[in-house]
Amino acid sequence: MKRFKAVIQYDGTNFVGYQIQPNGRTVQEEIEKALLRMHKGDVVKIVGSGRTDTGVHAKGQVIHFDSPLAIPPAKYRKALQTFTPYDISIVSVEEVDADFHARFGTIGKEYRYFVQRSEFFDPFARHFTLHFPYKLDISRMREAADVLTGEHDFTSFCAAGSGREDKVRTIYAIEITEEEDTLVFSFKGNGFLYNMVRILVGTLLDVGNDRLTVAQVKANLEARDRTQGAKTAPPQGLYLWEVYYK
Amino acid sequence: MKRFKAVIQYDGTNFVGYQIQPNGRTVQEEIEKALLRMHKGDVVKIVGSGRTDTGVHAKGQVIHFDSPLAIPPAKYRKALQTFTPYDISIVSVEEVDADFHARFGTIGKEYRYFVQRSEFFDPFARHFTLHFPYKLDISRMREAADVLTGEHDFTSFCAAGSGREDKVRTIYAIEITEEEDTLVFSFKGNGFLYNMVRILVGTLLDVGNDRLTVAQVKANLEARDRTQGAKTAPPQGLYLWEVYYK
Repeated sequence: MKRFKAVIQYDGTNFVGYQIQPNGRTVQEEIEKALLRMHKGDVVKIVGSGRTDTGVHAKGQVIHFDSPLAIPPAKYRKALQTFTPYDISIVSVEEVDADFHARFGTIGKEYRYFVQRSEFFDPFARHFTLHFPYKLDISRMREAADVLTGEHDFTSFCAAGSGREDKVRTIYAIEITEEEDTLVFSFKGNGFLYNMVRILVGTLLDVGNDRLTVAQVKANLEARDRTQGAKTAPPQGLYLWEVYYK
Repeated sequence: MKRFKAVIQYDGTNFVGYQIQPNGRTVQEEIEKALLRMHKGDVVKIVGSGRTDTGVHAKGQVIHFDSPLAIPPAKYRKALQTFTPYDISIVSVEEVDADFHARFGTIGKEYRYFVQRSEFFDPFARHFTLHFPYKLDISRMREAADVLTGEHDFTSFCAAGSGREDKVRTIYAIEITEEEDTLVFSFKGNGFLYNMVRILVGTLLDVGNDRLTVAQVKANLEARDRTQGAKTAPPQGLYLWEVYYK
């Protein structure tokens, strides 16, 4: 038995998320179905670095699985791609040490969020960006991003009812860049709570649009109370961009 | 009653084409439904510059319609957009002379076709480009494009059974440009026959991939026989880019 690490991309539009659900099509299910076919009916379970929600995309999701197949990794990638539907791409497959773990081995992740600022709605981008044709003060948003960067208890910035786990996370960097009429948010951190990136984006858009001051963001963060938080930005602008391992 | 010209964009993925069909969702039907709502139940028919097929996109389709509504064109655009689904965008609405005709008034059109040459399939581009990871000799394709440019009888390059109409058309220019890993074909001409652009793209790809010589393309053109033609490239790479009027 060998352990394999694979990097995958997916268009989240037609999935109810990464993780297998009783109802609805998931990324995990489609890849396990592909592995089942490659293994002639033997079940092969995959472990992902973490979940993504309905409509959220991935450019660099990482999974691992164990397989007895004696085929070289490059051919493994191609074979797995052959059995996988068109909204998932297998970017690479490599053999790794038996103690590699896609979820517990992560030391950080990058998420990106794309906002399209064009006056008119672009039908070609509707599943891949948030259309936001309103005024935004980018420098004020960067000030608020600085407040959020670092080690904090992010209780105010995760979905209500997401359990009693420790809510302290470290954001290494938040970058906001403009590429023509698109605003790209990059969040790098040691881990992110449920809906945290989408709530951070909602907060930063509220700051840019004069609905929230930087001081209020600081107060919300210190309040450790989700009810203080901003709106959750919609899923289609969000991408799990990269997962880091040691 | 005033006549209006509108420029529209649409993502063709979820349409069975532009023109109303007994079965399936069409662009014409969605816009006429929007106009019906704006006119409180009075039917307003639209006329397009021409049809596009299932899965084919438009960046600059042009339509006209007559409406008694006394609202300024800029507000007309916004109102019509409000009633139109998210895969159609109303780019502009302007009042025109009563003798403007979106179909009969055209003096030419530009179509573009996008081919993605990356080794790996990109799930985010699957509805918007043709993935073609095989070798292509671009300079040979440009030679073949020169053969096809000009006034010709394009019987060999239109769908079989597309009627007895005159098959002579003039292609003003075929340009093939490379933008990173994407190949963009631009076709400008006074008119295009049914499936003609997709058959031209199929032919040029066959030339680039050594399945057809430039001499064979010339012979096919002169044969005026559809059965000599190349494969029809799939619809998702094709965009009606611009429609020209006097």
